Parts: sequence; structure tokens; C-alpha cells
Amino acid sequence: MNDQKKIGTAFVKSVQQRSGLYGSSKNLNEWFAERKSNHVFSLQQIPFSELKNWSFETKTGNLSHCSGGFFRIEGVRVETNWGNVPVWEQPIINQPEIGYLGFITKDIGGILHFLIQAKMEPGNIDLIQLAPTLQATRSNFTRIHQGRKPLYLEYFTDKSSSKVLADALQSEQGARFLRKRNRNIIIKTEEEIPVYDDFCWMSLGEILHAMKQNNLINMDARTVLSCIPFNVDDVTANTGQLRSKFGISFLRSLSNKADSLYTNEEIISWFTDQKFRYELDVKRIPLSSVTNWERNEYEIKHESGRFFSVIACSVEADNREVASWTQPLVKAHQKGLIAYVVKEFNGVLHFLVQAKVEPGNFDVVEMAPTVQCLTGSYQDSPPDRRPPFVEYVLNAPQEKRIIDTLQSEEGGRFFREENRNIVIDMQNDSFDFIPDNYIWMTAGQLKEFIKYNNFVNVQARSLLSSLNFK
Amino acid sequence: MNDQKKIGTAFVKSVQQRSGLYGSSKNLNEWFAERKSNHVFSLQQIPFSELKNWSFETKTGNLSHCSGGFFRIEGVRVETNWGNVPVWEQPIINQPEIGYLGFITKDIGGILHFLIQAKMEPGNIDLIQLAPTLQATRSNFTRIHQGRKPLYLEYFTDKSSSKVLADALQSEQGARFLRKRNRNIIIKTEEEIPVYDDFCWMSLGEILHAMKQNNLINMDARTVLSCIPFNVDDVTANTGQLRSKFGISFLRSLSNKADSLYTNEEIISWFTDQKFRYELDVKRIPLSSVTNWERNEYEIKHESGRFFSVIACSVEADNREVASWTQPLVKAHQKGLIAYVVKEFNGVLHFLVQAKVEPGNFDVVEMAPTVQCLTGSYQDSPPDRRPPFVEYVLNAPQEKRIIDTLQSEEGGRFFREENRNIVIDMQNDSFDFIPDNYIWMTAGQLKEFIKYNNFVNVQARSLLSSLNFK
Repeated sequence: MNDQKKIGTAFVKSVQQRSGLYGSSKNLNEWFAERKSNHVFSLQQIPFSELKNWSFETKTGNLSHCSGGFFRIEGVRVETNWGNVPVWEQPIINQPEIGYLGFITKDIGGILHFLIQAKMEPGNIDLIQLAPTLQATRSNFTRIHQGRKPLYLEYFTDKSSSKVLADALQSEQGARFLRKRNRNIIIKTEEEIPVYDDFCWMSLGEILHAMKQNNLINMDARTVLSCIPFNVDDVTANTGQLRSKFGISFLRSLSNKADSLYTNEEIISWFTDQKFRYELDVKRIPLSSVTNWERNEYEIKHESGRFFSVIACSVEADNREVASWTQPLVKAHQKGLIAYVVKEFNGVLHFLVQAKVEPGNFDVVEMAPTVQCLTGSYQDSPPDRRPPFVEYVLNAPQEKRIIDTLQSEEGGRFFREENRNIVIDMQNDSFDFIPDNYIWMTAGQLKEFIKYNNFVNVQARSLLSSLNFK
Repeated sequence: MNDQKKIGTAFVKSVQQRSGLYGSSKNLNEWFAERKSNHVFSLQQIPFSELKNWSFETKTGNLSHCSGGFFRIEGVRVETNWGNVPVWEQPIINQPEIGYLGFITKDIGGILHFLIQAKMEPGNIDLIQLAPTLQATRSNFTRIHQGRKPLYLEYFTDKSSSKVLADALQSEQGARFLRKRNRNIIIKTEEEIPVYDDFCWMSLGEILHAMKQNNLINMDARTVLSCIPFNVDDVTANTGQLRSKFGISFLRSLSNKADSLYTNEEIISWFTDQKFRYELDVKRIPLSSVTNWERNEYEIKHESGRFFSVIACSVEADNREVASWTQPLVKAHQKGLIAYVVKEFNGVLHFLVQAKVEPGNFDVVEMAPTVQCLTGSYQDSPPDRRPPFVEYVLNAPQEKRIIDTLQSEEGGRFFREENRNIVIDMQNDSFDFIPDNYIWMTAGQLKEFIKYNNFVNVQARSLLSSLNFK
């Protein structure tokens, strides 16, 4: 068995194991409640004038940190021939630095475990959520803020005593960030490593079970987990403990050798055609000149009250690199909808993926879930003018809903933003018409495109990683 | 045998066939000479003031076409922590439109043939070279210049009667172009199609043989050919007709299942680390403000006389979409050096590939050949200050030189630019030290990264496509 297959099999085994928290007599919810009660966090919205070290630049009105680090709120003017809106302007988060989102894993009793942390982020619903072992911007680990070094950083900067299981740059929300990417990395250590307060070891089965709860596993954890290469050729050997038809079909779908409707080459050609056809011109403009957006003492918002606003907050935390700080956050004005429609073809589960243009995309289009409506506009529109498949997803009966939860966006930038995450198994349903920016792909193909990065967007990755084949 | 393997095998068979030009009693050089003598072309350098429809914009000094199409000469300010020069400014070609570079192929007598054209480009050495079937900017095929429709365009826009063998966006010279890409596409038709004057069918073996000549197969043809997925698992079945040890080792290297020194995942992790480590900040600035560059009546050049200059020319041609026009061209001031060092490990040929930062790169670094010195600075420097491996490549003995030819850059933008293309088989030599932005890869791995695009730069692709395993 070659190395990649060994890694794939170890991941599959870890999914099949729900063993509670390693080394703890508590279950996850008890441990999590304890972590919460052990800390003092507070968050307050403040006027922009009370931001410390952050200010609006005189010439541009851009909101930036005095160090030049972290991120900036700027403006963009977007022109595109994709979708119904050919030109618009909006604020956007410009964070050119690449940070780490990393998991340390370890074989414990024959099962691969992930070192997860209960982490406070100002924008989180309930303030703390479960996060990867390391979640650090470059400003964090170069210590612009003069705080403590992030815990476990050294395992990622010196990988001599560990093995890299996955390691790629991955995009974040193209509607909110200008070409932001983070290094998503999973390493496996053979060493004994300390488990600090707020950290614990969990199997993948335990993590996937936790994803059934709303807003518990944070976005960063979900995107890193999506990079797991299951890569299992020999499906029959791994289906013994599976119960559901769906689980078997999904595990088959994760295999590189799955009988897919389209080859990878055909999907690349389809994607090339989408990039060739659609133009996206994004010009950075001063925040103060963004049309239809206005700034008052407390927020920068669209004059319609829709989309999102930029606000400021002050934070106190006893266990972060610095104990208190102020920062801007982006606040969505409605819940979004993120959904895959899936269907079995030839015994293999396929995902209906769309090529979607977003202003902050690194390369015009990325592969997105079947439905991705962050603006909530799908609710305001009459049914016949909603984006494709929204009606189908919202009206699917209970027995076809594989997943239906609320999941959070990144709490370091977004204020209590949660989106409804849905996966619908079509079973015997079929669509009369599928627009040509959609294509059916297996999970293994999505994984392959994730591996080569800048193909699959953060919503598509995070939703994929919450599916279980147990 | 699955579809991809069938395609791979057809390509391998086509390489092994040197059958002259299909349907012609002439050999390539006779046919090529005839094409030349059949046409009247002329080229003259002119002062910028005689450019028609091109002018320097008042505010920026950028050189642009009155239609807003084609390309623009602008300036960039580059800051990077890669290499020895942390900050510089330079002119750059901004051509945001994605064009077609496409080959039509067809099975003729059991052998896959490529429809090649003898094409005139103003910057070509000798004015005409062999080009892909279709070579068209978006301005060409949307007919901004109001000329004729490019021949064979319809086979690429309506692919209903053909099969796509490769189709990806590929980058061009990152030192000269700002994020330029073209759609590299190879289709296979089953139809009878007309063969117009200046076009002929060639097997891959014939094309590879022609690459032994200087400046005959143009850059566009070479980059498209690099996208060929050989993808041959069963090497022994295909080595029967091979003669050389090198050929066998190279064919093994093209297989997806080659015993490579590093897995694709390890290479991706290495590449991720390079992107994470190196910063590249490229700001577009007005051409008139680019420091250390000056403009006179005839050229825009660096005050040192090094690097390149921008010139203007007028062209007359009897067989292009328009019969005469004027345009800017970029003129290199020295011959460059492009070289792979290759070596067999475990019976499989490996290529020493570097991660290289160039200002026009889409994503910070791309994979480049072992040596890529376009500025000719390697000649001015004392031996101990030359870039890595230059000395080794220049001094390698004849019996290790698999390739040593002069090949042209794209004649639509570059004025008679040719670079020395070298491939050195190290055999039993070894290097004491390899810098960590270099890694050994098989040809199959390079092909895989080419497939997922924005990984392998145009020099690395073009040089790879000129290697023969016959």
C-alpha cells in the first residue's frame, strides 16, 4: 500500500470512530461548557472614533491599522458580464497576508486524532467555537501586535519531526475578501506533545458528529478538514461498518477511481470555458468614493440597508495573544443559504457544482455549491426570480435532507454571521434543465481540485467537509 | 482501456511516426520555403509618431490602441523578498483578454496528425514560423480590427463534432506580461475539414523533428503541445520501438505511475511553502513615471541599455486578417538561456524545476526550468555570481546535451527574440547543493501540474514539449 493510500485509510478509520474526547472523562459538550466558564470574554460595539490603532486614511477613507498589518477595509469597483448586475461598487476586506490554518494530528490507539481548540473570536456567536490547532495571521506570528507567540506555531514552522498530510493555499469568501488566502495545513506528529488548556484530541468521527450542532465547529476548522485526501481505492474493504446506502454511495464517491459522469479533463475544459467566457474587472478604489454606501459614526452601510455593514468593536479576552483590543468587523444583514444538491449516478454520489464569479476571486470563477446566496436576496425575490435550485432546496422533504444546520463564518472578521447549510439527496428526482455553469462531480473530484487549490471556494469546501459516510 | 489512456496512446504513436507532411510530396523544408516565397511580407521599424491607432495616453503615458483592445504598454512597480533586487519599476505588457491557441488534430491512417500553419508574425525571425491551427486574440475573433475572421475559428467555438483532448488557461512570460493567459486547446475532429493554403497535417514525430531546427516551431505551438496528456501507464507496451536509454527513461517519466522521488502532494506542499514565503507586490503605475526608463522618438529603454526596449513597427502582409498595420513590439537586448537539468532516478527521468517569482505571475511563483535567464545578465556576471546551475549547463560536454537549439518567443509581441534552449542529462554527475526553491519532478508530474494550470510557466512548458522519447 503506498503512502497516500495509507493516509487515506487512516482518515477513513478516524471517521468511523466516535470515541469522545481522548484523555478526558467529559463529553464534548461538558468540556466545551467548562472551557467557556473558565474564561472571561466580552465584546462591545463602539463608534469608529473609539477604535485604537485603527483609523480612516485621510486621502482614501480606507480603514486601516497603524502598523500597516492585519487587514484594511477598502473599496472596489466591479465590472462583469456574469449574472444580472454588470457594474457595482462595494467595500471589501483587503488582507494580502497569508496566514496559517493548521491541524496537528496524531495516531492515538490506532486512530488518527485532531488537536482542536476552543477559541474565542470576537465575531463568534457565543464567542467561542472549536477551531484548528493553529489559526494565525502573519501579523500574529510575526507579532505585530506584540502579543504572545501563538501556541503550537513551532510545529508548523519546523516540520522536521512531522509528516505533512495536506498543505495548500485556499481562498476565502470572494464576496467579502479581495483575493484572500490562507495556508490550510494538516500535519501528523510522532512526538509526545503538550495538550494545553482549551485544547483536546478528537477523532474525525467525533468532529463530524459535532458538526450536526449549529455554530460549534468554526469555518477555519471546516475548510482545513476539506483538504483531507481520503483517496481510498478499495471501497469494499472500508464499507463493512457502513450502515446507510447514502454512506456507501458517498464513500465510493470519495475514491479516485469512482465511475464519474465526467473525467477530470472534461471538468477542467468546462471550467476553462467558464473563465474564458466571463470577464471580471475589479478595480481597487478609495473606500470614501464607493457609490451607494455611506458612513456614519457607527457603521458603513449600503443605502438600501441590504448586504452587509462594517462596524467597530472592542474585545476583552483573558486567553488570547493580547488581552484587549479593538477592531472592525463585517456584519451580514441576513442569513445566507449554502446548499449542495447531490444524486447517485452509477452507484456513486455526485455533487451539482456551479462556476461562480465573485469580486474577490483569485481567478474569475471558483467552484461553488449548487446554491450560494449570501445576501439573503433569495428571500426577497418572488419564487420564479430566485437563483437556480433555491426553490428545490427550500422545499425538499425531510427524508431527502442529509444536512440542515446553521454554520458560522470566520469570527475574526465577521460579526455573528451564520448561514444555513443544507445537503439534499435528490434520490429519484431529476431536473429538466441545468444551466451550463453547473456540472456534476464526485466528491473525489472535488477533493482533487481542492488539492490543486484556487478551484473550489470556501463555501463548497466547508460544506463538503461536514458530510459523513459512517 | 479508458478514454484518457486511449488518448495518451494515440499521442505516443504519433510521436513514433515521422511520415513527412500528409498529402504532400514535399518535405517540410521544401513546403515551408514555398509558403515563404508565396507571400509578400515586410516589416519596418518606425518612430512612435507614425503608429496608426496607437498613441501615448496624455495622463499616464501608457501606449494603447484607440479601440481599447489588443494590449497596452503600462508600468509596474514591483516589490518582492525573492532574489537580489527588492524593488524595481519596469514597463510591462497588459493584455487582459484571453485568446485562443488551438490545434485541430485528426486520425489519418491510424496516426494522430496536427493541423499546423505557416504563420507570419511581425516579430518573427524570418517573419514566418510554424504555428498552431488557430492563434487568435479576443480582439481578432471579435474583430475589433475589422479584418477577416480567423480560419478554423468555428471548430473551436462549436465543439459539437469534435473531442477536446486538452483545454486549459496557460500563463505567458511573467517578466514581460502582466498576468497574461491564453486558452491552450487541442481538439480532435472526425470530420473532413478543408486544408487551406499555408496549412498542413503533421505527426508529432515530424513536429518534434522540426524542433531540432532553430526558430521554426513558434512559441505558441510549443506551449499548446506541452498540454498533451501522454498518460501512458503501460510503458513496456510502448517502448518496443525505442532505441535510446534516454528515450525509455523519459517515456517512463511521462507515466502517471512513475516511481517519482516526491509525491504530487509533497510537491504541492513545497510549492505552497514557496508561495507562503515569498511576497510579490505589483502596482500598476503610469508608464511615464517608471523610474530609470526613458522614451525617445523610437524607443522606450532602460537607461543602462540593458533588459529590453519597446519599439514601433509597420507591417505589410498579404495573408493576414488585415493587410497592413502598425504596432508596438518588445525587443530583448540579449539572448537568454533556458535549460533543464535532468537525471535518472530509479530508472525514471527527473527534471530539476525551480519556483521562480516574476512580476507578471498570476500567483507569485510559477514552476520554471532549472535555468531561466532572459536578461542575459548571466553573461555579464563573474562565474561565481551567476544564478545556480548556469555554469554547469554552459560547460556540460556534448554527449550530455540532449537539446541545444535557439527557439523564438512569440512574434506577435516580441521582436526577433530568441533564447538558447538546452536540456542536459546529468548522467552520473551530482550536485553538492540544491537551493530549496528547486525540486526534482518527473515529466508526468509536470504534465499533471500543467493540466491544473497556473503552476508551470511558459518556458518550462515549451522546453518540455520539445523533448522526444523516440
